Amino acid sequence: MKNTDLQDYSHKRLNILTGEWVLVSPHRAKRPWQGQNEAVSNDLRPAYDETCYLCAGNTRINGEVNPKYEDVFIFTNDFAALQKDSKSFSLEDGLLVAESETGICKVVCFSPDHSKSLADMDAKDIQKVVFAWQKEYKELSENPNINYVQIFENKGAVMGCSNPHPHGQIWSQSTLPNEVDKKNTQQLAYYNKNKRSLLGDYLAQELEKKERIIFENDSFVVLIPFWAVWPFEAMIVPKKQQSNILELNGSEAFEYAEAISVLTKAYDKLFNTSFPYSSGIHQAPTDGNENKHWHWHMSFYPPLLRSATVKKFMVGYEMFGSPQRDITAEIAARMIRELI
Amino acid sequence: MKNTDLQDYSHKRLNILTGEWVLVSPHRAKRPWQGQNEAVSNDLRPAYDETCYLCAGNTRINGEVNPKYEDVFIFTNDFAALQKDSKSFSLEDGLLVAESETGICKVVCFSPDHSKSLADMDAKDIQKVVFAWQKEYKELSENPNINYVQIFENKGAVMGCSNPHPHGQIWSQSTLPNEVDKKNTQQLAYYNKNKRSLLGDYLAQELEKKERIIFENDSFVVLIPFWAVWPFEAMIVPKKQQSNILELNGSEAFEYAEAISVLTKAYDKLFNTSFPYSSGIHQAPTDGNENKHWHWHMSFYPPLLRSATVKKFMVGYEMFGSPQRDITAEIAARMIRELI
Ligand SMILES: O=P(O)(O)O[C@H]1O[C@H](CO)[C@@H](O)[C@H](O)[C@H]1O
Ligand SMILES: O=P(O)(O)O[C@H]1O[C@H](CO)[C@@H](O)[C@H](O)[C@H]1O
Repeated sequence: MKNTDLQDYSHKRLNILTGEWVLVSPHRAKRPWQGQNEAVSNDLRPAYDETCYLCAGNTRINGEVNPKYEDVFIFTNDFAALQKDSKSFSLEDGLLVAESETGICKVVCFSPDHSKSLADMDAKDIQKVVFAWQKEYKELSENPNINYVQIFENKGAVMGCSNPHPHGQIWSQSTLPNEVDKKNTQQLAYYNKNKRSLLGDYLAQELEKKERIIFENDSFVVLIPFWAVWPFEAMIVPKKQQSNILELNGSEAFEYAEAISVLTKAYDKLFNTSFPYSSGIHQAPTDGNENKHWHWHMSFYPPLLRSATVKKFMVGYEMFGSPQRDITAEIAARMIRELI
Repeated sequence: MKNTDLQDYSHKRLNILTGEWVLVSPHRAKRPWQGQNEAVSNDLRPAYDETCYLCAGNTRINGEVNPKYEDVFIFTNDFAALQKDSKSFSLEDGLLVAESETGICKVVCFSPDHSKSLADMDAKDIQKVVFAWQKEYKELSENPNINYVQIFENKGAVMGCSNPHPHGQIWSQSTLPNEVDKKNTQQLAYYNKNKRSLLGDYLAQELEKKERIIFENDSFVVLIPFWAVWPFEAMIVPKKQQSNILELNGSEAFEYAEAISVLTKAYDKLFNTSFPYSSGIHQAPTDGNENKHWHWHMSFYPPLLRSATVKKFMVGYEMFGSPQRDITAEIAARMIRELI
């Protein structure tokens, strides 16, 4: 194959972390768009909004009053999808199979300032969010009923975010969700075979090629993975193999915060809009095992494709077949790199 | 466990066709909604629109003129994600793995009437669409480079549909997409073990329980699968084990059309709107093997949750963990059944 084949002809790429494929159609980026446009809201928000249930000092729907918090504020989700003291049962009636699932869901406010997003905060303030994630992961991992902790953020109305106040969530539960289970299996198989981290070896290749790297500092690399699904999907990976975020020391936590800051600021510049995404940290289960095969990482899945109003729809073929993208990972990496 | 546990407590259910789980949080259906509302367009469309590139007699972007077709019209996609004569190559450079993928993409216009959707067509006219699908599946299956044929429809702007003219698509290719691969594996394992169809045995259980059945005629069952992900996800399954749609005789094709008609009409009544969805037919690969383990079926994935303007967002936890739903399959089935 020629070096340019991946830029010219349709092909599929393997996601080494899940074992699944993405279909890439580079020739298709030129098709005209006649579909739905998203609403953009670039309206400035006030630093405090009296109707916001996440602002400091305000009362939530259940009557609780938020403290006058100064940096990060965390509370248990008032409408949690998982509950701590839910009933335990299991069903295996022929082909109908179900199991009860318990857990704890929390909301993490990143800042008392209603007008900000991570992209507007400086690395020092994001570091406080990282410290809060560490504290929560630690506390939840000590709970014998919690075996996995999913930290994530939905940013922007187009990502189902019901409140623009800067915040993320933590859903923790007793079993491994589908996506984590896949990554667990793939990393374990590689580790058992090679006694090295899958993502560590991948990172070494990417650092040599440089084609998909967006940014790096002493401890972290920000890149568009070879198998990216979303147009501007990116991944933040620690250079050292670490199984979870508890292994970060203070200065590494700062460099992680810097990586988040650099990426989210570049995203906002891309289409001159507050860039929507879902982000999430995949890390080792909290099942009491060593989980040496895990190399934690944070991924960003942003839906925008061509502008602030045109997003990629993961529908039809994507739902029934495989995810499909037009613009290649290499071109996306170049576009974002130029904004840093 | 009690019979009502699945309606009261959070749990996960196994999708027997993919081996993956869905998280169900029945207690959560009550949370308030402050997020994005979708635009509804219940405006009446004309039967002919001179700006529509799918209407009979109109010129498409590439200069081709559509014939004055009277029922179904099929052409090769002008902006195909897969191309027939694309270059063949493969890459295995350490952890960077890619393979070229060729294929044929087609557009299937269901009717010359721009104002209609499948829900507005009668079963006799939908039967003509079924015949067209059969013809295409047959022709593509005779192509040695095509080993899988994905028939699907994206309906509604919220599903990325760029033209309201009633139409679907067919993407056919040389390898199995992710979702099909999973269903192939699960059905094969079950068939090898039991010498019976997985979906046939599942159907027998559902027909006995009746809790999730929406509609049935002599040859087909319409139901909400036990493991449904989308709020009103539904499945049309032939009662006889058939590996693909070519096995349908004329009267079965009519009963299949009737099932589509009944389901889509009920959908439109649910929130009094032209109900958006992606639908797709999963059937046996066209790889020349017998594929006796396959039991074909058609699924509908509609995004609406509470009204014509509030959809379920598959974001954050869903992207990084597992799909999650609030309203149970049993309640969704009852709501749709009442509209038939
Ligand atoms: O082919 P269309 O209708 O232009 O495009 C639509 O369907 C495709 C197949 O599901 C998707 O890949 C696109 O994201 C979507 O916008
Ligand atoms: O918890 P929220 O922000 O109300 O809800 C949002 O995030 C959840 C977790 O990703 C999703 O299940 C919901 O569909 C989405 O609207």
